[in-house]
Amino acid sequence: MSYQPPVQDLMFCIEHLSHWETVSALEVYSECELPDVGAVLESYARFCAEQIAPLSQVGDTQGARFEKGRVTMPDGDVQAYAQFVEMGWQALTHPVEYGGIGMPRAVGAAAVEMLNAADMSFGLCPLLTDGAIEALLLTGSDEQKATYLGPLIEGRWSGTMNLTEPQAGSDLGRVATKAVQRADGSYGITGTKIFITYGAHDLTENIIHLVLARTPDAPAGPKGLSLFIVPQKLVEPDGTLGAANAVNCVSIEHKLGVRASPTAVLEYDDATGFLIGEENSGLEYMFIMMNAARFSVGVQGVAIAERAYQRALAYARDRVQSRPVNGQIKDAVPIIEHPDVRRMLLRMRSLTEGGRAMAASTAGLLDIAHHRENPEFAALAEFMVPLVKGFCTERAVEVASLGVQIHGGMGFIEETGAAQHYRDARILPIYEGTTAIQANDLLGRKVMRDGGATARLFAAQIAETEAKLASGDASARAIGTGLAQARAAFETALDWMLENSRTDIDAAFAGSVPFLMLTGALAAGWSLAKGALAAQTGQDNAFRTQKIATALFYAQHILPECATEQNRILCGSQSLLDAAFPD
Amino acid sequence: MSYQPPVQDLMFCIEHLSHWETVSALEVYSECELPDVGAVLESYARFCAEQIAPLSQVGDTQGARFEKGRVTMPDGDVQAYAQFVEMGWQALTHPVEYGGIGMPRAVGAAAVEMLNAADMSFGLCPLLTDGAIEALLLTGSDEQKATYLGPLIEGRWSGTMNLTEPQAGSDLGRVATKAVQRADGSYGITGTKIFITYGAHDLTENIIHLVLARTPDAPAGPKGLSLFIVPQKLVEPDGTLGAANAVNCVSIEHKLGVRASPTAVLEYDDATGFLIGEENSGLEYMFIMMNAARFSVGVQGVAIAERAYQRALAYARDRVQSRPVNGQIKDAVPIIEHPDVRRMLLRMRSLTEGGRAMAASTAGLLDIAHHRENPEFAALAEFMVPLVKGFCTERAVEVASLGVQIHGGMGFIEETGAAQHYRDARILPIYEGTTAIQANDLLGRKVMRDGGATARLFAAQIAETEAKLASGDASARAIGTGLAQARAAFETALDWMLENSRTDIDAAFAGSVPFLMLTGALAAGWSLAKGALAAQTGQDNAFRTQKIATALFYAQHILPECATEQNRILCGSQSLLDAAFPD
Repeated sequence: MSYQPPVQDLMFCIEHLSHWETVSALEVYSECELPDVGAVLESYARFCAEQIAPLSQVGDTQGARFEKGRVTMPDGDVQAYAQFVEMGWQALTHPVEYGGIGMPRAVGAAAVEMLNAADMSFGLCPLLTDGAIEALLLTGSDEQKATYLGPLIEGRWSGTMNLTEPQAGSDLGRVATKAVQRADGSYGITGTKIFITYGAHDLTENIIHLVLARTPDAPAGPKGLSLFIVPQKLVEPDGTLGAANAVNCVSIEHKLGVRASPTAVLEYDDATGFLIGEENSGLEYMFIMMNAARFSVGVQGVAIAERAYQRALAYARDRVQSRPVNGQIKDAVPIIEHPDVRRMLLRMRSLTEGGRAMAASTAGLLDIAHHRENPEFAALAEFMVPLVKGFCTERAVEVASLGVQIHGGMGFIEETGAAQHYRDARILPIYEGTTAIQANDLLGRKVMRDGGATARLFAAQIAETEAKLASGDASARAIGTGLAQARAAFETALDWMLENSRTDIDAAFAGSVPFLMLTGALAAGWSLAKGALAAQTGQDNAFRTQKIATALFYAQHILPECATEQNRILCGSQSLLDAAFPD
Repeated sequence: MSYQPPVQDLMFCIEHLSHWETVSALEVYSECELPDVGAVLESYARFCAEQIAPLSQVGDTQGARFEKGRVTMPDGDVQAYAQFVEMGWQALTHPVEYGGIGMPRAVGAAAVEMLNAADMSFGLCPLLTDGAIEALLLTGSDEQKATYLGPLIEGRWSGTMNLTEPQAGSDLGRVATKAVQRADGSYGITGTKIFITYGAHDLTENIIHLVLARTPDAPAGPKGLSLFIVPQKLVEPDGTLGAANAVNCVSIEHKLGVRASPTAVLEYDDATGFLIGEENSGLEYMFIMMNAARFSVGVQGVAIAERAYQRALAYARDRVQSRPVNGQIKDAVPIIEHPDVRRMLLRMRSLTEGGRAMAASTAGLLDIAHHRENPEFAALAEFMVPLVKGFCTERAVEVASLGVQIHGGMGFIEETGAAQHYRDARILPIYEGTTAIQANDLLGRKVMRDGGATARLFAAQIAETEAKLASGDASARAIGTGLAQARAAFETALDWMLENSRTDIDAAFAGSVPFLMLTGALAAGWSLAKGALAAQTGQDNAFRTQKIATALFYAQHILPECATEQNRILCGSQSLLDAAFPD
């Protein structure tokens, strides 16, 4: 079973959903034309399908191996990564002035999806490097940029995020790693960091760790954190690599999934670090990196969902079992003919395409917000990021699980491959901020803080789409009906949240994840609905018909969940907060 | 983290939900008193917690091993199984006349839950043996009963079900294994069976395979299947073991979960088999066994859910992270204080207790139906079996996944143990008939066949519970409101299903799984509501308060899903059936 990158749908999303007209009118992207984007993505698709996808099952079986302080990657990863560097793919979305290709974020999202669908374990390394690049671009000094950006954008060096410690996971205020300034201006970093993705590996000649630590006089809690560059090998003034830094990998984790992605425990023993920006602003900087990573993790969710869908679809076409329930055929048929298998496949497809559409739209908003002073776009972009992360990752677990189910007993056998997606997907709603953390971000920072202004703008834009659907054909009108009902559920929940944010904050946060799921489901359904409108005209009839059919299925099978979430929020907070947990 | 068998809740379910008055009035159970049941379950609980639970992680890590045609079980399993036999636990629910203890099915369900919560891989062996015993009791000849029942009920021999072949999974009509009668009346069985749970192991001195096969002149399809006893070792007339039969284990599967439960490929090469009952009636007999096994697999779902809940609860009490959102405490608190962690824990608890309550009720119905001529009880029991299997197993996957989520990053590390439940649970909605098969059974055989009569009786009984809740306190009334809304959704969906069963059978079956999930959620909510009524009086205040709180949470957080399922059924069939899957 090979991976077939969905380039047509990715291009459809870029063209119709990523605010392409506005994005491509930005000066920074003035040379970026759709046909070029298509050519780049086709080329990347070939690379992912041919070079990377075959590594996924091998990597899962072998896993990254740890021995005597060194991590050895599974067979083929080193060669494939060298090719990734050779072809310059790490540079795709980064600024031309630092050696990047300068493509918009929506193109980057398409690339992230394909690479992670091909092999999520492999895809994590470039994903983390992207985050490190983004953080350095926005907060690094000119000297730091000159030293580190080039090799990172080339992919010759990789980047990591060092946040978590045994006692500090979601609660970064508890970070205890120490940073003591030395006479030469550098800092001695001492402490233990855990869950460091690609914290040690043999793919690149250097690893640039971005590390949250605390200076001796820093205030307690999250406001006393500073961010440091800690290269695995120190970099000489001429850019060559010098001595090894005092950072050691003491073990890697034995994980449920993404087993070819080494998750390291790193010990810093007076390692040399370089402060980024100002002391005590580390968390703010880390959030820049984290926001980029959160968006990308949402896209990983789409990636796993797509791969699981393709595998299940191929099996459902191939596997012959049982006659149709309507009795019209007397022989067993491929199981794709059975209504419930269709239901599962369509659920997988609509959730996958919904997530992709929403991610493309968000990528466009992020680009516009980044390159133009526009508080409305910026607020909408920030509003969308926790939705992409929270919704697409939770749904990836569901989609991967459906993929196992479609395979029946074969799905439970590891060699089939469906189970790997189910295992790999499970980390997605956890890392880069759990779903609850995303929900708190959405509710606290993106909804309550501006009194619901952005949320109401979001709803108003959806209403505009509904109005367009209302003058369409029967399918369009049915999509519009589902969307309007879901939006009404959202607005009811929103009013209640805003009211309770003043009167009963616990009750509000008791519904934070249901609110995230409601809003995410609505955002994905809205994105699919916009796609359905765009698909009313065009060339490829089968593709356009499918886009509309998928949006309709989503409107009738997924959007009704919004009313359930609304019910939970409005009626369920007291029973949630009052219940006791006796021994 | 040790397993604490929930004996108090199990006994509560037996006393208040398993129709205990009627069951214990049956002649066969006339000597069975609740205090005795309590003593038996306490004893079994100790065995499960102390002897079995410690094996679970070891077994998962080592797995069953296959070498040169032999299966070796993980460390400790052989000794623990010997103790299981020594204590006579296999006999718990079987007839006294064959050496059984003769306890009712509800007690058996409690025992199955505890054993499988302790170690599902271990629990599968006795579960399959129970099924073989049940089939022999109902369909075996006197001689077959005399030969096989004693050692099976002792647990000295184990039983298996041999249905699946590479081309015949859900579609048993495609079974191709041959059975050719010999001059001595026995049959020569030849063919390959796959996915045979405990098809080979070193726990017992013999294995009794029940095998579906086809005689030379049998009609094609499911009506040409016969059922055979194929002992691994032939049994001499005096009951001693003779020559090895021509059944060979050629491999075992490398699975996502339940790794200590060997899943065998068995080759029958003119093996000696003995016909059970009549030729061509094999599927009917197998369904007897399968119905018992399906119910038990539903209980396995409750078991995994309970274990996952206990593990998550312990972690949530222990792990300190972040201040409360309401700002009333300035220090980090155990995460159980955070609303969303409470939400996840209560979701886990209410789904687990709901499944347990529903299983206890169904067990009682099955006993009454089995031992008394009462078509109404029989029909209700049959109606409930696919709900217990379908709903409890799908929810087990969800609950296990929430258990991982509560652990955050630690949940993804295999040593933590939460991931094992997520892996183990995944087989439950697949084996003994996938969720779609259960849904077809519910809709086709249990609803449409009697024109909805049983389904309406089910709804009417729920309405009676609602009436009692209406005169209760605020919690009771709120539970009643949730139940009434869910029942209304059920009746709307039922009307639509009955109408479409005549006019558009494809549309009806397009909603079969949503209908199963709706009905299952309602049945579990109803069972919890009956429990809440029972909990209004009694001794242990903390326990009774928890029962009511759990039922209320379920009514407000889970039952609203019924309306969503109803929407999918009524509005979603066309978009499901019309969608194309272009290449």
